[in-house]
Amino acid sequence: MSSSQIVRNPFAAFCRKALADIQAQGRYRRFTPLARRADAYPTYEYTHAPRAEPGPDVTVWSANDYLGMGVEPEVQEAAIAAIRAHGAGAGGTRNIAGTSPLHAALEAELAALHGKEAGLLFVSGYVSNQASLQTILTSMPGWICFSDRQNHASMIAGIKGARGATCVIYEHNDLADLEAKLAAAPVDAPKMIAFESVYSMDGDIADIAATCALARRYGALTYLDEVHAVGLYGAEGGGVSQRDGVADQVDIIEGTLAKGFGVHGGYVTASSEIVDYLRSAASGFIFTTALPPAVVAAALESVRLVRRQPWRRERLFERVATFRAKLDAAGVPFMDTPSHIVPIPVGNAERCMRISRRLLDEYRLYATPINYPTVPRGTERLRLTPGPFHTDAMMDDMVSALRTLLREESLDEQSGATSRAA
Amino acid sequence: MSSSQIVRNPFAAFCRKALADIQAQGRYRRFTPLARRADAYPTYEYTHAPRAEPGPDVTVWSANDYLGMGVEPEVQEAAIAAIRAHGAGAGGTRNIAGTSPLHAALEAELAALHGKEAGLLFVSGYVSNQASLQTILTSMPGWICFSDRQNHASMIAGIKGARGATCVIYEHNDLADLEAKLAAAPVDAPKMIAFESVYSMDGDIADIAATCALARRYGALTYLDEVHAVGLYGAEGGGVSQRDGVADQVDIIEGTLAKGFGVHGGYVTASSEIVDYLRSAASGFIFTTALPPAVVAAALESVRLVRRQPWRRERLFERVATFRAKLDAAGVPFMDTPSHIVPIPVGNAERCMRISRRLLDEYRLYATPINYPTVPRGTERLRLTPGPFHTDAMMDDMVSALRTLLREESLDEQSGATSRAA
Ligand SMILES: Cc1ncc(COP(=O)(O)O)c(C=O)c1O
Ligand SMILES: Cc1ncc(COP(=O)(O)O)c(C=O)c1O
Repeated sequence: MSSSQIVRNPFAAFCRKALADIQAQGRYRRFTPLARRADAYPTYEYTHAPRAEPGPDVTVWSANDYLGMGVEPEVQEAAIAAIRAHGAGAGGTRNIAGTSPLHAALEAELAALHGKEAGLLFVSGYVSNQASLQTILTSMPGWICFSDRQNHASMIAGIKGARGATCVIYEHNDLADLEAKLAAAPVDAPKMIAFESVYSMDGDIADIAATCALARRYGALTYLDEVHAVGLYGAEGGGVSQRDGVADQVDIIEGTLAKGFGVHGGYVTASSEIVDYLRSAASGFIFTTALPPAVVAAALESVRLVRRQPWRRERLFERVATFRAKLDAAGVPFMDTPSHIVPIPVGNAERCMRISRRLLDEYRLYATPINYPTVPRGTERLRLTPGPFHTDAMMDDMVSALRTLLREESLDEQSGATSRAA
Repeated sequence: MSSSQIVRNPFAAFCRKALADIQAQGRYRRFTPLARRADAYPTYEYTHAPRAEPGPDVTVWSANDYLGMGVEPEVQEAAIAAIRAHGAGAGGTRNIAGTSPLHAALEAELAALHGKEAGLLFVSGYVSNQASLQTILTSMPGWICFSDRQNHASMIAGIKGARGATCVIYEHNDLADLEAKLAAAPVDAPKMIAFESVYSMDGDIADIAATCALARRYGALTYLDEVHAVGLYGAEGGGVSQRDGVADQVDIIEGTLAKGFGVHGGYVTASSEIVDYLRSAASGFIFTTALPPAVVAAALESVRLVRRQPWRRERLFERVATFRAKLDAAGVPFMDTPSHIVPIPVGNAERCMRISRRLLDEYRLYATPINYPTVPRGTERLRLTPGPFHTDAMMDDMVSALRTLLREESLDEQSGATSRAA
């Protein structure tokens, strides 16, 4: 072969094939372009056409800014003031001129929220999980991480990223299985139990107290993801661990600033020594630009408001209860969860996409179709997150649209007319 | 043993010991609290005392907002307008109501900047590297990734995260070594070459054309990190690959919005099929809240300005040349790099920290000490990044402070008076 011969890399062909497979399985994702209207949340402009005219308004039912904090005027003004004072970005990593007093204040505020000695910010909740878990689980040889089967992708990334560590998966929220697996492990291996409080796709909630009791018995560190609970549960929005009065029993509480707090970024809180170790050792914390001061200022304002305004949480749960009652009255099936999340089972990827599409096109209502790999195949669903800003009239619209579409699409399904999904 | 006996987890003790070791090695990091003054960049308020009075002003010499785009009024106003229109956060993942028209517009703008078919946003440059590399290198069995020895931690995280892949490290910017290693690998294994354009700690620059020629010969995919080059090199700030006219030869160009563009976030650009595959498969892209619309709007404005304003780049390189001439005239040693980065070698961690400390306390100048693990032990340095906003007077202050402190601290060093570092 001549030395100038060109060898083809097979990756492009691989991508084409993989994308064709995803499409054939009916789970190719098209992102629906939606511009949030800060003045009318949960109304968004549906900007589907690339032209200058404004698109139609739609009511969004799937956002994770659960309390609408991202559109609270005080939160917006805090961000704006920080942009005017400090600019649009941090301009450096935390170690390279990127630590403003705002970063330190937010870390202290989050530590206080969870009753911990210290807090540490990351660029996202995903990174806080991945970087913290990976760093801890590579710190000493022989770590065994007991991980709930339904843990989020970001926790799995961190656990799997720790090459030397052993990952033992226990059945979802099954404490008997967890205990059996703890008991079977070598007594002197360093152990961790990694779990979530509110599981966001099924909306169920872990028994934190019982998990921590097992952890104490077997000498396991506890790592709790409160991403879908912070802001929403507990007297000050400190999450389910605060509601249950057990935050002091959890070693590391992780959360996000992007859901209940409505802004962006992630964090962990723990003892000073654990936080200081992560600060000094976690690659995903050290080697990246700090969060912009404006993001930090907005999050700080949001956390402070949410802590002292329990009426926001009361209003959320009143709205969730009202919505469930309306679904019930209309005979629309839903998973009755102990949390604020209302999943509507649909059962296959194509049907799920189709109902979501028709909600948008025919009713101007937006609910995200949740398909594999986010949930197991066969459990596809629409995931609804009613909030303080959903009015009774909006609820009536959604309930009646769902009743119609679920009926029509299941008839089509039974007659086999449009069913192509596996 | 009684069933209620409590077993201790060894992690807290491990952390205490690890932190004591870091301290003993003189490389314990304390973040200097600095609040950027948007109205007077590169001046920051040094907010070292937790009290209400303002701290003293300091001139910062280490920020990575190389062009000062984060404090450009148009960039700030774009962020502010987006906060008013859309709120402080995105409120969902890209798939869950988090894709605004701004996200799509920025992805298109970045693709155009690099002459690629498509772009994809991530929450940071770190995540864009980690998620993209890991996803590609786990896509097919048998990947071999040829990785420059000095690649950034985020690239290493992605490569190491791909468990099935083989990582072959080649000597830094050594194309003979790279070719030998490519030639030694099995012909039919899928191969990738992962490298950077501007290496930020040494300030040297890769030969992209020659690397791509090798890649073609051996059928390797090319993955180029232009994090410290975007905005700064090339006719429109498309990086060194644009300057050298070889962007079309690079398969995947990765960059950040947080350095030359002054805002926050990361991205990759590539062919549509590669980008669409990453969009559909990369866990670090899928399972995380989208960047806030305000961050995206500010970045979009910044990229647009930077593309059409070459005077910003000219001004940067004029300032860098002037600063080097002043260092030279004063006899202050520096690493003479082909890039905009000016490292001042110092040689050990404690001395590096001490000089940085004295610059701040005695001269109100800030330059970050760069120690292990960011650079190898023995090569500790101050890393200076002169920019368009550093005046001649500021340069004179820095040069004379460095001359004094390097002399004093090296005398102390030689007499052994204060040297404790390894
Ligand atoms: C349980 C859980 N943990 C972590 C995350 C990541 O948080 P963030 O969106 O801030 O990256 C998410 C969702 O995005 C989540 O559902
Ligand atoms: C070479 C290189 N790549 C990637 C990154 C990460 O980019 P970001 O700060 O946007 O996370 C950095 C620095 O932070 C870097 O120096």
